[in-house]
Amino acid sequence: MSFKVNQDYLKLPGSYLFSTTGRKIREYAQAHPDQKVIKLSIGDVTQPLAPAIIDALHGAVDEMAAAETFKGYAPDLGYEFLRNAIADNDYKARGCDIAADEIFVSDGAKCDSANIQEIFSKDNKIAVCDPVYPVYVDTNVMAGRTGVYDKIGETWSDVIYMPCTKETGFAPEIPTQTPDIIYLCFPNNPTGATITKDALQEWVDYANKVGAVIIYDAAYEAYISEDNVPHTIYECEGARTCAIELRSFSKNAGFTGVRLGFTVIPKDLKDGDVMLHSLWARRHGTKYNGAPYIIQKAGEAVYSEAGKAQLKEQVAYYMKNASYIYDGLKSAGYSVSGGVNAPYIWLETPKGMGSWEFFDYLLENAQVAGTPGAGFGPSGEGYFRLTAFGSYENTVEAIERIKRM
Amino acid sequence: MSFKVNQDYLKLPGSYLFSTTGRKIREYAQAHPDQKVIKLSIGDVTQPLAPAIIDALHGAVDEMAAAETFKGYAPDLGYEFLRNAIADNDYKARGCDIAADEIFVSDGAKCDSANIQEIFSKDNKIAVCDPVYPVYVDTNVMAGRTGVYDKIGETWSDVIYMPCTKETGFAPEIPTQTPDIIYLCFPNNPTGATITKDALQEWVDYANKVGAVIIYDAAYEAYISEDNVPHTIYECEGARTCAIELRSFSKNAGFTGVRLGFTVIPKDLKDGDVMLHSLWARRHGTKYNGAPYIIQKAGEAVYSEAGKAQLKEQVAYYMKNASYIYDGLKSAGYSVSGGVNAPYIWLETPKGMGSWEFFDYLLENAQVAGTPGAGFGPSGEGYFRLTAFGSYENTVEAIERIKRM
Repeated sequence: MSFKVNQDYLKLPGSYLFSTTGRKIREYAQAHPDQKVIKLSIGDVTQPLAPAIIDALHGAVDEMAAAETFKGYAPDLGYEFLRNAIADNDYKARGCDIAADEIFVSDGAKCDSANIQEIFSKDNKIAVCDPVYPVYVDTNVMAGRTGVYDKIGETWSDVIYMPCTKETGFAPEIPTQTPDIIYLCFPNNPTGATITKDALQEWVDYANKVGAVIIYDAAYEAYISEDNVPHTIYECEGARTCAIELRSFSKNAGFTGVRLGFTVIPKDLKDGDVMLHSLWARRHGTKYNGAPYIIQKAGEAVYSEAGKAQLKEQVAYYMKNASYIYDGLKSAGYSVSGGVNAPYIWLETPKGMGSWEFFDYLLENAQVAGTPGAGFGPSGEGYFRLTAFGSYENTVEAIERIKRM
Repeated sequence: MSFKVNQDYLKLPGSYLFSTTGRKIREYAQAHPDQKVIKLSIGDVTQPLAPAIIDALHGAVDEMAAAETFKGYAPDLGYEFLRNAIADNDYKARGCDIAADEIFVSDGAKCDSANIQEIFSKDNKIAVCDPVYPVYVDTNVMAGRTGVYDKIGETWSDVIYMPCTKETGFAPEIPTQTPDIIYLCFPNNPTGATITKDALQEWVDYANKVGAVIIYDAAYEAYISEDNVPHTIYECEGARTCAIELRSFSKNAGFTGVRLGFTVIPKDLKDGDVMLHSLWARRHGTKYNGAPYIIQKAGEAVYSEAGKAQLKEQVAYYMKNASYIYDGLKSAGYSVSGGVNAPYIWLETPKGMGSWEFFDYLLENAQVAGTPGAGFGPSGEGYFRLTAFGSYENTVEAIERIKRM
């Protein structure tokens, strides 16, 4: 006898998407030290933290410097000051019935979206949009929930794919096979598409009818600019019995390097007598030790009057980039979508080029890095993602370079 | 069809130990608002962060306030400045051959000790000390690796228990059944016992012989005061082919509410051709998004000259408490161990009282909270843990109250 590794990990093809694009960008930059690569690839923010957040961080650091105000282990599920601010601002203010104790504070939506599958049975079947944020699928692969990989189709035998292409208006359709767990992300990463409240209500009704859970990733909620686009799934009737919502501070407040997010699990969401809320609480209590106090205080500042005003400007800054990319590419003859309620622009690669082929082409000829659509799933082939998270100056330069290409 | 929960979660008996003791303490305090409860229970620090760390935090916050120095997503495995500081100070300075790229920075040893089991096959058999930090066992239960629970013996059918009692000198003995994964923690939580370098070398030799992995939790390394007690398992020959080491900043630098730790996986540790290092890297890349930049800068300050000097004093402060508890209880007629190379004092409950019975007795009669030994495993029954992490004043008062009891 001898220890053995988790064979499910070995089923994962290649490496994590952004590790691969990151490596390719680094290699290009090393080989061409004289050229400036502009990254509109990973969804990483570039603007500094807002002054209200900086003040909160300094204040919290000072609290940690004195025995009277020092904070040790945080409460398992997050500090009440933050959970209350979230419940009041993100839910009650929108008329949604979510209590503070249904909110679990974490170190970010990536971790939550990766870990949430753990509380479900291994034989549950997942449905995902295609293209999709790779973490949803990869973590189910690592848990042994996805069956056999088809190398040619780049699909898993036990995953239900819901194509989101130009033909479907970049929206998923109710699948013919019934899933147990449905991952939805709106505003969408990677396509930048969104969903109307009526359309989301159909998903909620469907999930309640078939007994499925919707894992609703609303990380890009702050970028919604149009009416009748829901900011949370709990705007839909019946969502309390079928939906988990994931939220992030990364994109609305620039916390990609600060790390804070939360997950909402209503207590009405049950398998028989068992509340998913209890299982997630148990997971938090056993496998997690809370987000840093300093960081939770920064999260609280996001909801202060000053914080809200400053972050509205920050989001507007990025959305100005989004418009610039959208308009620039359109005027250059590209077929583009997204960018209106989301910081992502989704474009069709020109002349039938493959996604990765276009990635290399753009890097070599314009020194602009994006993300190949195929990296998000088979239906992403022939598409390409650009993000609005660069500086305005870099964004303008990148688009000029693409136009000249 | 309908979604189903992970049935393995439902096998967990009761709630997480520290949730239970926390609830009991809160309930007592609420019922007796006039009485001051002194908590020597959870291993949570009370001293403020050292000045060098506070300075580093403020400095990093300022960097986040300007676009030129703002930091977004951290490198998957941690910033190089921190990984280099760890490699140099914790390993190279002790003559241990560990490279910076074998170090994975995380948000704490609890998460790492909980998640590490994921990279192993489900049918691997674990061996744990008894008593033991509950996270090791509970996370294996949640992964379905532990078989059937025996309610009377409070043991799992597929777990190998290594009793650490007065009879064994609070040390584990090589088990008769061969494990695949061996969890060891020295200086030990909860008993405060430690291991000599020679004894640890025997475990390393054994693991290499039978093809087992040792998961070595060295979270309390900073409290070692005696010679011939290894600070890291990599002081032992052959550890690179059999040992993973978990480390924390919680206890040496007071980071329980700051959240920072790391895991070492040498590249020589393999199952056939598969490096455990690669699997853990994949897990980090897919399920985690790095510790906050601000916090990693605080971690770096732990290794500065000023930081080292200040933290040496902080550890000495807690160890003075440990001595006070140890000596006080001994003079009061208790049978005690630990407290010399560890911040934990392990005592035999008097008059054959059960651990939980003594917990209630101490809370009611001395308003002192500790942790019942039985909460750490069946061989912990009849024992009780007190921690040295209180303030000196509270520690003195707690011991006076126990003496008067």
